[in-house]
Amino acid sequence: MDNRIMQEVDRQLALIRRGVAEIVPEEELKQKLYRSIKENKPLKTKLGLDPTAPDIHLGHTVVLNKLRQFQDLGHEVHLIIGDATGRIGDPSGKSETRKELSEEEIRVNAATYQEQIFKVLDPQKTIVHFNSKWLMEMNLEAVLRLAGKYTVARMLERDDFDKRYKEGLPIGVHEFLYPLMQGYDSVILEADVELGGTDQKFNLLVGRHLLREYGHEPQIALMMPILEGLDGVQKMSKSLGNYIGVNDDPYEMFGKTMSISDKLICRYFELLTRVPIEEIEDMQVRMDRGELNPRDAKMNLAKELISMYHDAGAAEKAEARFKLVYSQGDIPQDIPELQMKAQEVWLPKFLQENHMVSSSSDGRRMLKQGAVRVDGEKYEDENLQLKDGMVVQVGKRKFIRIRIN
Amino acid sequence: MDNRIMQEVDRQLALIRRGVAEIVPEEELKQKLYRSIKENKPLKTKLGLDPTAPDIHLGHTVVLNKLRQFQDLGHEVHLIIGDATGRIGDPSGKSETRKELSEEEIRVNAATYQEQIFKVLDPQKTIVHFNSKWLMEMNLEAVLRLAGKYTVARMLERDDFDKRYKEGLPIGVHEFLYPLMQGYDSVILEADVELGGTDQKFNLLVGRHLLREYGHEPQIALMMPILEGLDGVQKMSKSLGNYIGVNDDPYEMFGKTMSISDKLICRYFELLTRVPIEEIEDMQVRMDRGELNPRDAKMNLAKELISMYHDAGAAEKAEARFKLVYSQGDIPQDIPELQMKAQEVWLPKFLQENHMVSSSSDGRRMLKQGAVRVDGEKYEDENLQLKDGMVVQVGKRKFIRIRIN
Repeated sequence: MDNRIMQEVDRQLALIRRGVAEIVPEEELKQKLYRSIKENKPLKTKLGLDPTAPDIHLGHTVVLNKLRQFQDLGHEVHLIIGDATGRIGDPSGKSETRKELSEEEIRVNAATYQEQIFKVLDPQKTIVHFNSKWLMEMNLEAVLRLAGKYTVARMLERDDFDKRYKEGLPIGVHEFLYPLMQGYDSVILEADVELGGTDQKFNLLVGRHLLREYGHEPQIALMMPILEGLDGVQKMSKSLGNYIGVNDDPYEMFGKTMSISDKLICRYFELLTRVPIEEIEDMQVRMDRGELNPRDAKMNLAKELISMYHDAGAAEKAEARFKLVYSQGDIPQDIPELQMKAQEVWLPKFLQENHMVSSSSDGRRMLKQGAVRVDGEKYEDENLQLKDGMVVQVGKRKFIRIRIN
Repeated sequence: MDNRIMQEVDRQLALIRRGVAEIVPEEELKQKLYRSIKENKPLKTKLGLDPTAPDIHLGHTVVLNKLRQFQDLGHEVHLIIGDATGRIGDPSGKSETRKELSEEEIRVNAATYQEQIFKVLDPQKTIVHFNSKWLMEMNLEAVLRLAGKYTVARMLERDDFDKRYKEGLPIGVHEFLYPLMQGYDSVILEADVELGGTDQKFNLLVGRHLLREYGHEPQIALMMPILEGLDGVQKMSKSLGNYIGVNDDPYEMFGKTMSISDKLICRYFELLTRVPIEEIEDMQVRMDRGELNPRDAKMNLAKELISMYHDAGAAEKAEARFKLVYSQGDIPQDIPELQMKAQEVWLPKFLQENHMVSSSSDGRRMLKQGAVRVDGEKYEDENLQLKDGMVVQVGKRKFIRIRIN
């Protein structure tokens, strides 16, 4: 063992370990890193992507950030766009959500996906594959050979299968083929490390098993934690509305970030930014000691995120605007939120309906008196186009934040 | 409903019902028969064959006889040679018995198979298919679509899967695809009726389900009972040695038939011959009343079978030879059997080893005195080529029947 190489292995491993939920098995990753450094041959890291849902939020970037770290350490990133399953849809025809996609739809989705992903990843060090290239070429013989590498009992150990089977809910036989197809991607790629959320552990281990079965060195499964959403309880997801999208505009990002609970601040820093871990730990200590106001830490987090997904200038502007809004009088920490559709409203009636004025004529009077503010600025027009994150204020005490759903 | 057609339906159904274990569902078969007669369009009956074991015994002919009946009623028989699975072997590589077969081996096996099958079926009314033609053309998409038509839970209901799963024995995921492939054969064929042993019920019903799923009229599943072997207990099978092969020579067939127990006589008549059911029932009555000696009934059965698989002349000859052997003195009903390899033996020592003489010199003496008979005829040569079914006799009391294994 070369000592200089071992030091480099330890350095890389320390960075790779940041925020990770589990590495299976870490010892093998160490050996792969050693060989990679010794032979100056980058590791192939792999991430599978579903092209049916092209909107990316910060929950997805937890894994992307880890891939970016691998890139910064000189390794290769291989993105596998799972277009084969997308093109097939749900073959049992029983799922409304798994509709068959046209090649054109998949192409557009994949492009949208990549555009967002390359806000995190370095396009120069990223290789994009479409798995239809090899999966669509499989004939029955190849499929049987693949299916023969795994047993029914082990498949039924997967949490969701186990649950559905025990509850008597149907599992289509084809569903047993999906994890195998995903694993087969690793075989074709001869992946060294596959990344995913902890919910992907089973699938990543299938890939590990298949590589071995097909006579290759098994891949390492690296699982990242599932990010909590803005509510701090449930996982970040679009359908729960507790997310920050990578395409959210800067002010939206700022506002949403400011709404997270204090205990999430350092976790978000760790999993979503490139701020060195020592700084984050220091931040936590200072907050615990009361030396750092969580509100300021959150503002820093917001600026970091906006710098990543927009730029530093946008981050400054968003902060300035935010401060302006919240410097008007005694703004409470928690502003009630109002779920609305994006629309133009007639303010006097809108204010009345939301109990900020007693009647629409009262609302008109307030507007004329300059007692109504939108995002901190005086607003006198009777009509208002509602936007997500917008704060409407009447007088010094009454606030409402608009949430577009 | 046309009354004349209904009468013909009832006539056909009565014949089809003979010996059947189960028809699922019989009412639909009736409708299919009605339409077939009305439109003068034969039904498509289907039988799947495994090309890995080309030796056919009478156990297999139970289903073949039923197919022959369909042919005699004017319907079509479609034989599906399952060469696709044969060509693939066991893709998990875990089964010694399911080796991959070459195209040449499959061609030879299939030819051997057909040669034997056409001793029962009418080649003019039989269409032979190789399922590799359509199965080998399936791509992943088609396989997923097929697999999506069936659930894991229903697959696990199959007896052998259920047993293995509960006992913790491995079931490869690919094994779930085999019943679906067999059922897909029915879809391609648009089969009206699929035949099989009662052990095939699950698979036949998968075919029925798939036809419906692919938008066709579902097939009828017609199950024949599993034939008991010569021992009257276990199913007839080559590995248990309790079988009569369709290629057995006439005398072998005769001897084996004579060795069955009385209670099997009418069952064999019903399932293995074309003797009218009324005659068989009458035979049973006469045996019950002691008016018919079971030994004579068995001889008739033996002659029927030899006439089917050889010819009437061979049947007569075999009977004559048998009678000759058994007319020598008081031949006991049960002659002890001796399992041997086909070989030439030195009789004096052979007789001594089997306790028929006290020493090999005693054996020589017996030979010279003309006290040794082989198949009823005096035998004086010291060397003897052993044959299956051969009876070796010393004096009037000592008998042994050779069984070649």
